[in-house]
Amino acid sequence: MGILENPDEYFMEAALREARAAAEEDEVPIGAVIVAGGNIVARAHNQTERLNDATAHAEMLAFTAASEYLGAKYLGDCTLYVTVEPCPMCAGAAGWTQVGRIVYGAKDPKRGYSTVGTGMLHPRTEVVQGVLADECEWLMKEFFKKKR
Amino acid sequence: MGILENPDEYFMEAALREARAAAEEDEVPIGAVIVAGGNIVARAHNQTERLNDATAHAEMLAFTAASEYLGAKYLGDCTLYVTVEPCPMCAGAAGWTQVGRIVYGAKDPKRGYSTVGTGMLHPRTEVVQGVLADECEWLMKEFFKKKR
Repeated sequence: MGILENPDEYFMEAALREARAAAEEDEVPIGAVIVAGGNIVARAHNQTERLNDATAHAEMLAFTAASEYLGAKYLGDCTLYVTVEPCPMCAGAAGWTQVGRIVYGAKDPKRGYSTVGTGMLHPRTEVVQGVLADECEWLMKEFFKKKR
Repeated sequence: MGILENPDEYFMEAALREARAAAEEDEVPIGAVIVAGGNIVARAHNQTERLNDATAHAEMLAFTAASEYLGAKYLGDCTLYVTVEPCPMCAGAAGWTQVGRIVYGAKDPKRGYSTVGTGMLHPRTEVVQGVLADECEWLMKEFFKKKR
């Protein structure tokens, strides 16, 4: 899918490449990119095992990288693309960064932020869900199937 | 207060020293320490301005530092001392680390995690609130009074 025809799918493909890189490193396969002005300004995947840090989720690493790259604490003009619904920690981080949009793929019915509430997001943040959800979910299911 | 008479106040004093260091750097004055086996294994204060990163809260920095120091992703044997009630992001991070206890000083009626819910904490995490709350709150009030 080209960037002009469907930018959300185009950037979710980039997040999926990050998720696949995570799977190859035996990390929970979740990937994220942050986009500003049509350009990817941060790419990250889950690194909780490699960094031995339970907080090293794709979104947290991407927010920090985007702020570093842009020299900006607030990311109101950015969109976060992430393959799986953010957890409450990452949704809370999204709230602090005031990220303008969140586009995610698969729902996380167990640990997604919406299981707790939506009060951690900034009131102006737009949320879109379900973009390339099947592939995002498939990666997670395959990963946990192998772990069993 | 000595460590033997009242360990919670003793370690909260250490968190307060971090909060005061934050105030001196013109950061929101919140400090945290993480304790394992009676020893402080991580100290941190809010660094959102210095790092230009809206996610650089005292607790986040302390969790990452404690995991690094202990070589452990899970902090079930640790206590987090923090001068102000954690926000949803930091409570979510506490959930992922499975930290054994959280002791905090002042309530945060606007942005504390309990305004959103408690589902982000690990079910086994014990929470104690109100330790040296007056001093913890005073630091915050003084800081924001000067900002006005």
